[in-house]
Amino acid sequence: MSAAAKSLAALGENGLLHLLTARWKTDPEQVLTGVGDDCAVLRGDVKNHFLLFKTDAVVEGVHFTPPEKPELIGRKALARALSDLAAMGASPLAAVITLGVPKSESVTRLRAIYRGIERLAKKYRINLVGGETTCAQQLFLNVALLGECRGYRPVLRSGAKAGDLLFVTGQLGATRARRHLIFEPRLPEGQWLARHKLASALMDLSDGLGADLPRLARASGLSFQLDFGAIPRAKGATLKAAINDGEDYELLFTVKPADAKTLKKKWPFATPVHCIGVMGARGRQSRKSSFVYGFDHFKQR
Amino acid sequence: MSAAAKSLAALGENGLLHLLTARWKTDPEQVLTGVGDDCAVLRGDVKNHFLLFKTDAVVEGVHFTPPEKPELIGRKALARALSDLAAMGASPLAAVITLGVPKSESVTRLRAIYRGIERLAKKYRINLVGGETTCAQQLFLNVALLGECRGYRPVLRSGAKAGDLLFVTGQLGATRARRHLIFEPRLPEGQWLARHKLASALMDLSDGLGADLPRLARASGLSFQLDFGAIPRAKGATLKAAINDGEDYELLFTVKPADAKTLKKKWPFATPVHCIGVMGARGRQSRKSSFVYGFDHFKQR
Repeated sequence: MSAAAKSLAALGENGLLHLLTARWKTDPEQVLTGVGDDCAVLRGDVKNHFLLFKTDAVVEGVHFTPPEKPELIGRKALARALSDLAAMGASPLAAVITLGVPKSESVTRLRAIYRGIERLAKKYRINLVGGETTCAQQLFLNVALLGECRGYRPVLRSGAKAGDLLFVTGQLGATRARRHLIFEPRLPEGQWLARHKLASALMDLSDGLGADLPRLARASGLSFQLDFGAIPRAKGATLKAAINDGEDYELLFTVKPADAKTLKKKWPFATPVHCIGVMGARGRQSRKSSFVYGFDHFKQR
Repeated sequence: MSAAAKSLAALGENGLLHLLTARWKTDPEQVLTGVGDDCAVLRGDVKNHFLLFKTDAVVEGVHFTPPEKPELIGRKALARALSDLAAMGASPLAAVITLGVPKSESVTRLRAIYRGIERLAKKYRINLVGGETTCAQQLFLNVALLGECRGYRPVLRSGAKAGDLLFVTGQLGATRARRHLIFEPRLPEGQWLARHKLASALMDLSDGLGADLPRLARASGLSFQLDFGAIPRAKGATLKAAINDGEDYELLFTVKPADAKTLKKKWPFATPVHCIGVMGARGRQSRKSSFVYGFDHFKQR
């Protein structure tokens, strides 16, 4: 059966995205990286200036439920996109918002949703520069975000080398504690790692370690070994939850063995950081650690 | 009754957008113009370099119907955003796409929709650099677009002066001829006007002359006088249709009287261009003349 004849459920989110974007070609003079990393990276006008470009949507009933506090819905819509900038070590510049909204929606609720966006934008000094609205059957918010790295390069998923150590910020598996609504995007942490060239590869955990780590490994052409006992678990989270639950929005990154000591010594944040494994050459993956877990919207029942 | 207590229907799209974005403040060092023009404009690193940023969504049942040819759905999603870049005289750089899609959607149809996006992107040399997918009850496509003006300034809606002549490209009122699916964004025309500093104000017609012209006038703090007989009408279109029908995606712009001769002499495009009126000082409109007050005169039910 050809890929195009498959159902969405059989393809999954990644399969669909691959199918739809596989033919996309970009101009290497303008684009450092397109589809496949946390953000697209465009080359700026001056040396070591890069523009980062990201789009992301939250949909009612998928990413949040109607009873959620509206401020947190707006907050989450922007925070998710910010986490993708953090995942490359970039700083946010400006955002544009598209609101899809049923005609029956309460204007008071919409204002509260936008208050949530505005508060987070203010905190991170993001210019809200565009808003569009359209009718829709289901409430959705799309955030498109522009960011930059100025004076240093963004960290891609593809830069890890065999032997690099694998680190994660924070604790994993806290989705059920509503962290997915109130998480803090790891922007200072990501920027610090990129500026100090301490991460060889970097991404954020949005679909869970079990789904995201294999993506980093694939992008770098490597295998990985996890030290399951070292995975930092949120209060009450089982190991399975720490690996499978999506929406941690923590940073996953690799560090050259020679830099690991510097990282631990100089790490200036209250956010904990843990070494949870090591990257290996491709083909050295053992079945035991080559799990594929994680969250896929199209595959959930 | 406060604005927030009104229903969406009573507020309308513009009222809602104003309500949601009225408190947004931007950093004038970074942002030339935010909400309120066709695109947001950010200042670039070098003199006369500007980045333009736009988001726009099409929703099934609102902007297209299920039987439409899928290639044309994708084409339209990108073309609408391109028209907004044309409306400031900018060139497109890169686009990121968010797809919201029901689980039951046909993968073959989605591929065809994306083919429509890709073909138009190729034509205008736009880098497709990011794609996200999410579940939704109703198919939607959000396009976020980055463009630039390099070596010249983008043309805002607010630059018209009293006495400037009002021009429009193409013919108006062709929506029923499916033009809304196959229109060509007026990118070369917009860029030419901006580069040659021939337009004092510029926008595209997406909601119809009757809704959009008052916006240009309001942004410039002016009134306007239309010569109804001079409005170029698409084949079979009544004057009412030419004024009221949305989705023309033609350019509406103002020209200093001293530049009008140059414009007509040097205009290098096959696209026709017509003078349809003149801008006046605010408050100079009279009910008896052919002056038009604005939106209310054309309000559609």
